[in-house]
Amino acid sequence: MQVNNRYYRTIWPDPDNSRQICIIDQRQLPHEFVIETLTSPEQVVTAIKDMHVRGAGLIGATAGFGMFLASLQAPNMGFTSYMEKYAETLGNSRPTARNLIWAIDRVLAAIAKDADIEQKRSTAYATACAIADEDALFCQQIGQHGLAIIEAISRKKQGAPVNILTHCNAGWLAFVDYGSATAPIYAARDAGIPVHVWVDETRPWNQGARLTAWELQQENIDNTLICDNCGGHLMQNGLVDMVIVGTDRTTHTGDVANKIGTYLKALAARDNNIPFYVALPSSTFDWKLDKGMHIPIEQRSGDEVTTISGKDPLGAITTVTLAAADTKSANYSFDVTPARLITGLITERGVVKAERQAIHRLFPENGTDR
Amino acid sequence: MQVNNRYYRTIWPDPDNSRQICIIDQRQLPHEFVIETLTSPEQVVTAIKDMHVRGAGLIGATAGFGMFLASLQAPNMGFTSYMEKYAETLGNSRPTARNLIWAIDRVLAAIAKDADIEQKRSTAYATACAIADEDALFCQQIGQHGLAIIEAISRKKQGAPVNILTHCNAGWLAFVDYGSATAPIYAARDAGIPVHVWVDETRPWNQGARLTAWELQQENIDNTLICDNCGGHLMQNGLVDMVIVGTDRTTHTGDVANKIGTYLKALAARDNNIPFYVALPSSTFDWKLDKGMHIPIEQRSGDEVTTISGKDPLGAITTVTLAAADTKSANYSFDVTPARLITGLITERGVVKAERQAIHRLFPENGTDR
Repeated sequence: MQVNNRYYRTIWPDPDNSRQICIIDQRQLPHEFVIETLTSPEQVVTAIKDMHVRGAGLIGATAGFGMFLASLQAPNMGFTSYMEKYAETLGNSRPTARNLIWAIDRVLAAIAKDADIEQKRSTAYATACAIADEDALFCQQIGQHGLAIIEAISRKKQGAPVNILTHCNAGWLAFVDYGSATAPIYAARDAGIPVHVWVDETRPWNQGARLTAWELQQENIDNTLICDNCGGHLMQNGLVDMVIVGTDRTTHTGDVANKIGTYLKALAARDNNIPFYVALPSSTFDWKLDKGMHIPIEQRSGDEVTTISGKDPLGAITTVTLAAADTKSANYSFDVTPARLITGLITERGVVKAERQAIHRLFPENGTDR
Repeated sequence: MQVNNRYYRTIWPDPDNSRQICIIDQRQLPHEFVIETLTSPEQVVTAIKDMHVRGAGLIGATAGFGMFLASLQAPNMGFTSYMEKYAETLGNSRPTARNLIWAIDRVLAAIAKDADIEQKRSTAYATACAIADEDALFCQQIGQHGLAIIEAISRKKQGAPVNILTHCNAGWLAFVDYGSATAPIYAARDAGIPVHVWVDETRPWNQGARLTAWELQQENIDNTLICDNCGGHLMQNGLVDMVIVGTDRTTHTGDVANKIGTYLKALAARDNNIPFYVALPSSTFDWKLDKGMHIPIEQRSGDEVTTISGKDPLGAITTVTLAAADTKSANYSFDVTPARLITGLITERGVVKAERQAIHRLFPENGTDR
């Protein structure tokens, strides 16, 4: 998508050195647009853990390239055990993210077929690139399927702007391109349908304030930043036509783990008869987990709650403390929205009910529904 | 309550000069404990509007003293018209707060009975003091009625700590003493019942992070600060036994306007069968309004969303910008929790169903229920 009128993806092999990977350091946004070069597999772990990159699809794509960088560093003797050990470390960098494991497993499976070590390295590179390309393609397809939903609402509203609420950033910054929750919004814009987005700021890390509002602005999509507390009031007052969010892991029964606070918006949408959609590429499905409440929920440092960073009056990025010095805090990163609160899942193959049989019918290659 | 082991109320006449009123400037908390002296009625309007003081009961008490300061300034010729004009200005300083109008009307009614101007001034002072004293007394009584609820939960939990979630600050800082939502918590502590409080930070103004966590710490009540997004997850996982919040205006039918985001917590409590209580002195009731959705909802500057203040690494209070420079934002200060989501209202006369007839039975002096 566009940044300062130039096209970017969120991750790409360095065109000058194919043994290096470029990312946008999202910790610096929206204040600074910084491109970071990753040269070692350890840097990839840090980039994921410390959230230089974040978001379901981008974590997956970054993990793919991490496996490639690991393959470059893996010794010819003991190649496989090195790769397996790295895969475990990388897989533990964010516990809730499903795409992480999915991407790692995909690279491992692909290189397992090669006998030659150099061939394994080429395969790791090709697989990482394929993961990234596929992510972009799937998001584009999600956009087309979601567009039909927005079009229908727009017709009912006789062309008045469709008000869409989103939580966190499931924008292009969370994927390789287009985004999941934002893809239908970008598609609607391209189709000439007026849309307006309510952007939850999404404490504690403020992905909404820092990333979603910024990327929508870069693409000239009308949007209004709100506190996470605000959505219920907007819904009660008819100011929200639909909700679209992303997901970090989706059970094959339709439960969704997404950024903490998503569940509260789903409850409010249900209470006000507002459609609540979750957009996801199928790589986010966990085909083994029956109950959303069994998804491991990441706990991060309480410092993310008691402090925050922003631009100070002199233009420097400063961290300020928001609470008294000895305040105890808890920081759960995700919550689970049960399938019963979800109107539909927007996938690359179409919109599907958040329900086991329907999901398996759409993705029959992942075993039966029993 | 205690600050640095010394007893304070949130507002008091200056013992050295009874023509001046002392308040705690809550904008500086928790970083600095600043006592501010108000000497003119205009300063009172500013203190309420710019939130040097805030919270249902304290806004009422401050308004009472504002009327007293106005009576000192009102000319003997045209006293009544001066007072009425000031009452209107003061009444418009925060649109949602019910106690504001209630306190102003109470002073106006009291001084209307006096013929002599000096007598009116004395009456204004006495009435303002009575409002403050009564607020403290009523909060103490709320504490006793709420205590019974906490005791019952504690018995069920066989003495394990009772986990109470609260939103915003309905603590003693929001009243004259004790608080509404916190009064039962302080009473439980006094009764030897172990309690733990989940404190919603309460964006955008962060009353929870800045005030509630701080005042609970000053009183040695175990508490954990969380983002507003977090409560639903805690409730889904059995980590919340009850919710107690305050209210800025309560219809006589039981609908409650409280800090933005309260409605979302009420929905989550209902979805998880967790009791959801609202604590209030009866001065918060609006005896004329039938529907919560008709309560005027204050909109404040979007700057409260896009910027935030805290202590920087050098110890100075610094305001940082959280979003890109040209980000549009909206800032609704309250939302309405419908009576159907409320387990009970904890008032100074007892716990009552959030329901028109029950409320009128408990407060029969405010007309019939039809």
